[in-house]
Amino acid sequence: MDNNGLKKVAVFGSTGSVGRQALDIIRAFPDKFQAAGLAAGNNLKLLKEQINEFRPGMYHSSSRIDYTSKFLPLEEIACSPEIDLIIMAIPGSVGLAPTIAAIRSGKTIALASKEILVMAGEHVFKEALQQQVQILPLDSEHSAIWQCLSGEKSKPEKIFLTASGGPFYNYSHTRLKKVTAEQALCHPTWKMGKKITIDSATLMNKGVETIEAHWFFSLPLESIKILIHPQSIIHSLVEFVDGSMKAQLSATDMRLPIQYALSYPERIANSELPRLDLENMSPLTFKAVNYSKFPCLKLALDAARMGDTYPAVLCAADEIAVELFLSGQIAFTEIAILIEKALEKHTCTKQPSLEEILQADSWARSYVRTQGEAL
Amino acid sequence: MDNNGLKKVAVFGSTGSVGRQALDIIRAFPDKFQAAGLAAGNNLKLLKEQINEFRPGMYHSSSRIDYTSKFLPLEEIACSPEIDLIIMAIPGSVGLAPTIAAIRSGKTIALASKEILVMAGEHVFKEALQQQVQILPLDSEHSAIWQCLSGEKSKPEKIFLTASGGPFYNYSHTRLKKVTAEQALCHPTWKMGKKITIDSATLMNKGVETIEAHWFFSLPLESIKILIHPQSIIHSLVEFVDGSMKAQLSATDMRLPIQYALSYPERIANSELPRLDLENMSPLTFKAVNYSKFPCLKLALDAARMGDTYPAVLCAADEIAVELFLSGQIAFTEIAILIEKALEKHTCTKQPSLEEILQADSWARSYVRTQGEAL
Repeated sequence: MDNNGLKKVAVFGSTGSVGRQALDIIRAFPDKFQAAGLAAGNNLKLLKEQINEFRPGMYHSSSRIDYTSKFLPLEEIACSPEIDLIIMAIPGSVGLAPTIAAIRSGKTIALASKEILVMAGEHVFKEALQQQVQILPLDSEHSAIWQCLSGEKSKPEKIFLTASGGPFYNYSHTRLKKVTAEQALCHPTWKMGKKITIDSATLMNKGVETIEAHWFFSLPLESIKILIHPQSIIHSLVEFVDGSMKAQLSATDMRLPIQYALSYPERIANSELPRLDLENMSPLTFKAVNYSKFPCLKLALDAARMGDTYPAVLCAADEIAVELFLSGQIAFTEIAILIEKALEKHTCTKQPSLEEILQADSWARSYVRTQGEAL
Repeated sequence: MDNNGLKKVAVFGSTGSVGRQALDIIRAFPDKFQAAGLAAGNNLKLLKEQINEFRPGMYHSSSRIDYTSKFLPLEEIACSPEIDLIIMAIPGSVGLAPTIAAIRSGKTIALASKEILVMAGEHVFKEALQQQVQILPLDSEHSAIWQCLSGEKSKPEKIFLTASGGPFYNYSHTRLKKVTAEQALCHPTWKMGKKITIDSATLMNKGVETIEAHWFFSLPLESIKILIHPQSIIHSLVEFVDGSMKAQLSATDMRLPIQYALSYPERIANSELPRLDLENMSPLTFKAVNYSKFPCLKLALDAARMGDTYPAVLCAADEIAVELFLSGQIAFTEIAILIEKALEKHTCTKQPSLEEILQADSWARSYVRTQGEAL
């Protein structure tokens, strides 16, 4: 942070859903935040527009490698002294190495990329502890828990990650088999990117969030519960040893948790953010999750319990399986089947290095692609 | 607190509902809390039992004035160096002078007696600020807000005090007129003392809690909203400038907020305290409050806005009016009528001293008693 209190932010994944919303917040508070670095994938058109608007000192696109003085590799932006905080919102395993590099140069990380903690949570938090670096959650559920734990002296006894249940929560197995990509992309309460919308429909998302919560809040997996809450108003809850619970509530708008991570430990007034109208709201309901109908959730929890390279295989297998489903090559219910096969077939490496984790990721991608094409 | 970390507690109002529950907590944690002082009203039988069990060094009953070396006036217990924290749960205006005395001797106050802040919130918090003394809420609503504000750097934009609505929320005015004391004493969700149960049925309770919240959290009255929440699961909510809200949830058991105030800033595991079962709970609903049907609430907010000696008159008038209703002398709907008359008839003293506040209290009591007998 410079002398004027301006936080210099690098947005990694700036053309994606989280990245664009992060830029909305940065745009709204030019005296507080500056987009000092931008990194995108293949959407060069939007990246150019963002560069024209925000005039960052550094940028990156995965589709170009002819670096210049401003067009830089990801790791270089991650380590630049011009950056205070990194919004890490690159999907997949690509963000892992730059995240580790950024932690080693003492940057605060606001983490949206789920794969990073699932694959390498132990590495990430070990480095963060050594460097005294903060890893802040951007996800609505983890932000909710983080907000509820603010000021508490001791760990919670349990946390409850809420799940809308996605568009198919009440579907039979037969009906689930016939679900199309178009149907799966209609999430009942949240507008998000394609991959995460499908992960919400399979409930893989909640499995992955359980693993993230395990690392973010250093809680045993058994203390992390999933609760179906179709209204998506309560974004998660915590339960303390005395039986008291706290919940965080808000409209379903990702800009709120993004702004909270950017402004933390302060909160800033933002009239653009929607408000809840408590007096005119649907009743808030909760129900137990049906594990048998949503095998991806169970697979994620199994992979988490097995640990080592299994969670990396889970993530990579899911990424390819979702891709195959979106392109119409496999059925919705085959996503779980392919992930299960990959987990079964995988030869685990104990206490893996980052390189071994990336090898497991790579193996699972090619395995699932081959298997998927054979289906 | 002594060298062993034992908190020495004086329970003022030890034979009442809050006092007995405070002793339940103290009994459960003999290594953490000690009932070093007890003070009761007229229930000498129960007070003797409590003295035999807890062996406090000091005690008091309002029905005896033949003091001994252990049987002491309230103020003396309040100021004793043998006391760290005072549970102030004496109903009415009697607790005001000992509370001020305790603050002046640097004791932490856990406050249940609603009248103290309503009558003299400005005096109490001025003294507390000067003496750097903490005034902790015991009420479930204020405890909920206090828990939700933990760790937050800035004040909330709004707070929402939840109200079950009491047993008559859906009654017509005609039906309300005929309500008996017996019916009014059946609260749908909480077991409490008689006076507060009637105040819940008239919603006077929420008016009084609004005034308390105004002082506890130094918020303008306009920022404090009331929300009908028939399930009494969410005990209150706060809304921040960014639109994020936090809520505290728990079973309806006063021992939880009492234990929280005693153990603060820690929380302690207590298997005696009931837990919420989120998966098997009624849907949580909220609705706007109907001010016209519950005039006591409006009278309380009016008295709060007028300030000075009006809130003291409100409290005293309500105490006597509820007494007259419980003894069958007036109708349920006449409680509000008597309070309104007292507020209209009162000659206000600007910036009153504690003595002038107590004079207003005294005037209102005798005025309402006379008016009530004339009805």
